[in-house]
Amino acid sequence: MPAKPLPIDAPAPLSPSTRVLLGPGPSDVHPRVLAALGMPLLGHLDPEFVALMDETQGLLRHVFRTENRLTMAVSGTGSAGMEAVVVNLIEPGDKMLVCVNGVFGGRMVDVAERAGAQVTAIERPWGEVFDPQEVRDAVKKVGPKLVGIVHAETSTGAWQPIEEIAKIAHEGGAMIAIDTVTSLAGVPVEIDAWEIDAVYSGTQKCLSCPPGLAPVSFSDRAAQVIADRKSKVQSWYLDMQMIQRYWGSDRFYHHTAPISMNYALREALALVVEEGLEARHARHLKNHRALKAGLNAMGIGYVTAEGHQLPQLNCVRIPEGIDDLAVRKRLLGEWGIEIGGGLGPFKGQAWRIGLMGQGSRPANVTLLLAALETCLRDLGYSVEPGAALAAASEAYGNAAQAVAR
Amino acid sequence: MPAKPLPIDAPAPLSPSTRVLLGPGPSDVHPRVLAALGMPLLGHLDPEFVALMDETQGLLRHVFRTENRLTMAVSGTGSAGMEAVVVNLIEPGDKMLVCVNGVFGGRMVDVAERAGAQVTAIERPWGEVFDPQEVRDAVKKVGPKLVGIVHAETSTGAWQPIEEIAKIAHEGGAMIAIDTVTSLAGVPVEIDAWEIDAVYSGTQKCLSCPPGLAPVSFSDRAAQVIADRKSKVQSWYLDMQMIQRYWGSDRFYHHTAPISMNYALREALALVVEEGLEARHARHLKNHRALKAGLNAMGIGYVTAEGHQLPQLNCVRIPEGIDDLAVRKRLLGEWGIEIGGGLGPFKGQAWRIGLMGQGSRPANVTLLLAALETCLRDLGYSVEPGAALAAASEAYGNAAQAVAR
Repeated sequence: MPAKPLPIDAPAPLSPSTRVLLGPGPSDVHPRVLAALGMPLLGHLDPEFVALMDETQGLLRHVFRTENRLTMAVSGTGSAGMEAVVVNLIEPGDKMLVCVNGVFGGRMVDVAERAGAQVTAIERPWGEVFDPQEVRDAVKKVGPKLVGIVHAETSTGAWQPIEEIAKIAHEGGAMIAIDTVTSLAGVPVEIDAWEIDAVYSGTQKCLSCPPGLAPVSFSDRAAQVIADRKSKVQSWYLDMQMIQRYWGSDRFYHHTAPISMNYALREALALVVEEGLEARHARHLKNHRALKAGLNAMGIGYVTAEGHQLPQLNCVRIPEGIDDLAVRKRLLGEWGIEIGGGLGPFKGQAWRIGLMGQGSRPANVTLLLAALETCLRDLGYSVEPGAALAAASEAYGNAAQAVAR
Repeated sequence: MPAKPLPIDAPAPLSPSTRVLLGPGPSDVHPRVLAALGMPLLGHLDPEFVALMDETQGLLRHVFRTENRLTMAVSGTGSAGMEAVVVNLIEPGDKMLVCVNGVFGGRMVDVAERAGAQVTAIERPWGEVFDPQEVRDAVKKVGPKLVGIVHAETSTGAWQPIEEIAKIAHEGGAMIAIDTVTSLAGVPVEIDAWEIDAVYSGTQKCLSCPPGLAPVSFSDRAAQVIADRKSKVQSWYLDMQMIQRYWGSDRFYHHTAPISMNYALREALALVVEEGLEARHARHLKNHRALKAGLNAMGIGYVTAEGHQLPQLNCVRIPEGIDDLAVRKRLLGEWGIEIGGGLGPFKGQAWRIGLMGQGSRPANVTLLLAALETCLRDLGYSVEPGAALAAASEAYGNAAQAVAR
């Protein structure tokens, strides 16, 4: 009865190489989160696991700085979070305005069109941010139901101010949805203070948890819009009304929650609370400044203007004449360091250096600067030996003095 | 600037209770898989991780018994796999025939309607399976593009023969998609021999990996149907043409693969190959027979007829007068054993006892029978002391003799 067997050898136990993850994500994971991942499973209906999900909702509200009841983690990666926000708020024919200045704004357009939205996209060149006035003009012209914008554009390292744009959306009668995949727990995210209607994030950036879950939160207004829908949400898997009943007290069966990933997220959030959000943001900024001082000392600049550079994602120009892949291969092969390449127009032109969550540490800044200097010098790029480390060291010294003052 | 702080205490490190998972999933996870989960991460574009994904595709083909090129794991739970199969094969207005004899057939109807399919559902009472003739009649009448049917109905423990129904679908010019969430690696699944066009599964049943990924496979014919679509797949996240380019050699960026979950799946599949599919199926059958002998000795019978009872999911009638929750709470509280309750019409009427993957072991059969006997006797149910264990023991003895003969 069985067809011909498909012969295969049983592989040896997994044994991945050791890496220092300084790319655009995933970031290095704290040992306590790895330990949580490896713990034996509870069932997804076990009272103890239900309590863990409740606890996780509380922790997520804290980290999102919101009291939104509808706050939880979707069982997919950050892009599933994006899709969850769009397909729940959009019904076919609804107007959506999307601000595009990189890969993830562009992705939002695609997701919204698939959801049947009438999408208007406004664009800025990659690496730039939107001026509130452009958004005001577009909102007036389009009259959208929903405005979508990326807070931290992972493809460019651009840090978009959100607060005023949220006001503009509301003045125009629209809701606002923001992408905080790369910003959450790295720079301030203020869902209630900014009056954000919907937000999604990912676990593998500044939360330093493996990829696989997408924290989301919806304002009460957005939750009401979802409750009042005329049509069913096109995705069964991402239907927030069903997901909410599963996370809620009636525990209505929807899907089987990814137990181990929820362990990891709970533990990662606990570590964020332990450190404190303000301290965590300050740490990201301090290590960013040291890295930047070191890179500048080697003549390497940012693709994004001063004032809009994300501390956790340093998107920098590859020096003239230096081969992108040659450097990244050597960093990975000899030092075990991963940094990211550029996407789209930045392919071969930029590196993306992440200092995210657990990865944002002086040891990593120092290691990367030293390794990069070696690579660049060997490729014939002129760098004064030790200049990068000296500049970083000075930046750390200044930071320490500022604290002491 | 920040709004009022949301005060919260940092929780202590995670420390879940120890469980024996004998419900409908998740099942107990092998220590080697837990160890893989806890390993530090590679980046998702790391050549070593790309190789791991290639290796996983090969292992999945082996376990699905297929040579389908389009074989991989979707980054969501089993229900995301269901949705991936439906939304990729269905375009708005397409006809789909769905066979419903439990929760998961019903779910497929909902998912297909949301995808814009014209759905015809045929039904059997919960616990029964479909006769090929009923499917033949419906296929003739409806002329569907796609027939959907559940191989192992997790809500009833019914084991649906598939091979003849696949032939019927093809004779009617339709494709066939099957749900193997609970069957894969527990009972034979023969994707190529049965000529299945699309299949999805979950990781948390007989693969004994945590929930969070959905193995899927599409025949070349189905892959061509996807390639020839007139409309975009409504879900960006589950668009197989994009996912395939990410898993494929060009590694075109789609989403960030859940690294740790992919470690776990690779390791779980390696363990399946190490054991061998035939040996694994035989083990599931042997432990099922012992459990069944023990349950029968206590006067407990199955909701599904002889010959259609899944060895890995024993859906049995709760004895007259016995309170469902009282028993399950005590099993969980005193023994740490989880068994599942009934869904839908079986709520309060049936238990679902899983002997899946790593959980299908004589130690678990013995433990459960002993614990259940104690609970039932304490609740006033008349059971001859030790009868269940004696019957199970005899079944194991018979199995050993059969091997020796």
